Parts: sequence; C-alpha cells; structure tokens
Amino acid sequence: MGKGKFIVIEGCEGAGKTTQVARLHSALTSRGVDAVVTREPGGTPLGEQIRALLLDPKYSPDAVTELYLYSASRRVNLIEKIFPLLNAGKTVICDRFIYSTVAYQGYARGLDPDFVKEVNRKTIEPLKVDLALFIDISPEAGFNRKGGADKSDRLERESLEFFGKVYRGFSDMCDLGEMVRVNGLGTVDEVAALILSEAEKIL
Amino acid sequence: MGKGKFIVIEGCEGAGKTTQVARLHSALTSRGVDAVVTREPGGTPLGEQIRALLLDPKYSPDAVTELYLYSASRRVNLIEKIFPLLNAGKTVICDRFIYSTVAYQGYARGLDPDFVKEVNRKTIEPLKVDLALFIDISPEAGFNRKGGADKSDRLERESLEFFGKVYRGFSDMCDLGEMVRVNGLGTVDEVAALILSEAEKIL
Repeated sequence: MGKGKFIVIEGCEGAGKTTQVARLHSALTSRGVDAVVTREPGGTPLGEQIRALLLDPKYSPDAVTELYLYSASRRVNLIEKIFPLLNAGKTVICDRFIYSTVAYQGYARGLDPDFVKEVNRKTIEPLKVDLALFIDISPEAGFNRKGGADKSDRLERESLEFFGKVYRGFSDMCDLGEMVRVNGLGTVDEVAALILSEAEKIL
Repeated sequence: MGKGKFIVIEGCEGAGKTTQVARLHSALTSRGVDAVVTREPGGTPLGEQIRALLLDPKYSPDAVTELYLYSASRRVNLIEKIFPLLNAGKTVICDRFIYSTVAYQGYARGLDPDFVKEVNRKTIEPLKVDLALFIDISPEAGFNRKGGADKSDRLERESLEFFGKVYRGFSDMCDLGEMVRVNGLGTVDEVAALILSEAEKIL
C-alpha cells in the first residue's frame, strides 16, 4: 500500500467509539496530519447493495453467509475508497473493521475465529492495519453507561451473554497482539489521550 | 447430512455437462433412484439477489469479492434447498459446484486455490460431496465441438488461455483425488455410460 496509515477503532456497544474516532481525527488534523474518517460499508454502490441484503428483514442469512456478505462489501469499499485514500497519503481512521467480524461472526455467532481471520486477511490484501485499538469497557459497564438501572430488566440475559462473547473476542485479540487495548473507563478526555498516544507511536 | 447422495458434474465449455446431467438423471430415475437435478443459484430469493449483483454490468467486482458473493449465494441455496432434499433422501445431481469456483476464481482469476478450497469447505459444511465428475475435454476440443473452424479467428487467444487455466484447475483436482476424471471425447452415449458407472459405485 501507499504511504498513508490505517488506524482502526473498535469496541463494544457503549464504548464511545464514534466519539473517540472524531476526537482522534481532530487531534491528528490539528497536528497537521491529513486524516480522514471512514466507516463501512462506505457508500460505494455495490457495497451498499450488499449491505442492504444483510439488513433486509426478509432474509435471515446464517453466520457463514453473513461473513461472506460483510467481507464482499468490505472488499469493494477497500478497493474503491480506502486504497485510493491510502495511496494518496491520507491517514485513514476506520470506525470498526475486520476485528468486529472476528468478534461478532466468530466468537458470538460461533464461526471458527481462525477461519474468519483467514477470510479477513484475504479480504484486505495487500493492506496491513497499522494500529487496531480496542476501547476496553465490559458489556455490563457499556450498558450501564448507556441506560442505567432498569436495563437489567429490559435487556435480557441473552443479550449480555452475546455481548460477553463479543467482548471476549476483542480481548483475546489484544492478548494475541493483534489489537492494542486501551482502558475505556476514564473520561472522554482521558480515553482520547490514551488513543492519541498510541496513534503517535505509529505516525 | 441425511441419506441422499450428492453428485456433481463439472467440465469446461462445450463438454456437454447439461446433456450429461439430464442423461444421468433419467438413467438413475429409471433404476428407481429418487434423483433431482439442480444448478446454482437455485431460485432462493436471497441467492438470486446476490447472483444478480454478480451479473450486473454496472459493477466489476474483483476476484475476491466474486468468490465471497458466489459462496454466499451457494450457502443460501444449500441451506434452503439442497440440505432439505438430501435430508429427505433424494439423490441430488448438481450442474457445476465448488470445483468450478476453484477452477475459475482460483486457477483462472488468480486466487490461491487452497484458500478457495478452504472457503468452499466452510461454505458447504456439513455436506460431503459423494461424487464429483470432471468431463474431460480440452478447451480446444470443446470450442471446436461448439463452433468449428472459424472460431480460431473470433475467439481470441486470451479466451483460450483463460479456459486453459480453468481446464488445468479441474485436471489438477482429478490428480489430487478430489474429482473423478471421465473421458469426454466419446459419443454422448459413451460418456453417459462412463458417468453412470461411476455413479453406480457410490449409490
């Protein structure tokens, strides 16, 4: 790939990803880095068509089908949007990426995580991710942050169990050195500072 | 999977696949085997939608994206149509299947054949193919059969080169024991007899 850096920010529901993506973007921009924010599917016509099939309530694809459709949509977005940005020297900050696929389709929906990772490697080729950050907040803490006390009634156990598996996926990838863990329990400013310091190491 | 057998017939352009699929179907039926013919994408709504994206001239997905979209469409067809047929004890004869994906997206379009095979394995799980037949006719012989002499002008070299790679893919899978080679140069009756005798071994 070209000269641009590729940075991913991941986390469970309520971890503050979108806020932190915006914070990192403005911090880098104010330091003179030519950075852009992106999220999937990214607006390419074919990518959006594929994503629409995934979101259409008429269909209920199984986990394998989902994996292929998400990966196809991602590949189109990479080729048509991300690779040209990186080749033009931009630093790209991506709100969720392949790690979510491992956590959701792999850990939570039961596909073999190693197979998901192999598909991911082929999907993003020849891209190498320069920095993948996991904003570490447990699902319980994320839910509490979002809603407070009565959530324990409304969000059934199943949901917490599902997000517990997602969390374990991200956490395992940190332990394996595939992602960098950032403590997400501080204030927005504190977490933003931790993320910026990781970004500065690779820029 | 259930009690039904799953038989695949593959071959290059002009190999007479469709004729031979029909011949095998009627030969098995007349022997009292409850057999059905199928081809992909198979008519499921989501599978057809995915296939429509692949065929839409507005888009030009790369080989990786193609692999995922073909595989997603195949998975939907398996879950919604093929698995229930096999579970009901039917013998299913499929006109092209995963081997075409190895030959076309792998050998001809340049993806790593081992990666394509790994994706195929996950796509069809828990199905095991009982018999995969390759009707062996070289691309040159196939073209000659279809059109004769002036084809050598109109079909440019590129096309023969492409189909040469497809042919090598099928041929390699026969050498690896993943498919059974059937000499396709005889008459329709002769080829049908060879195919039937392979089918009888597994029925």
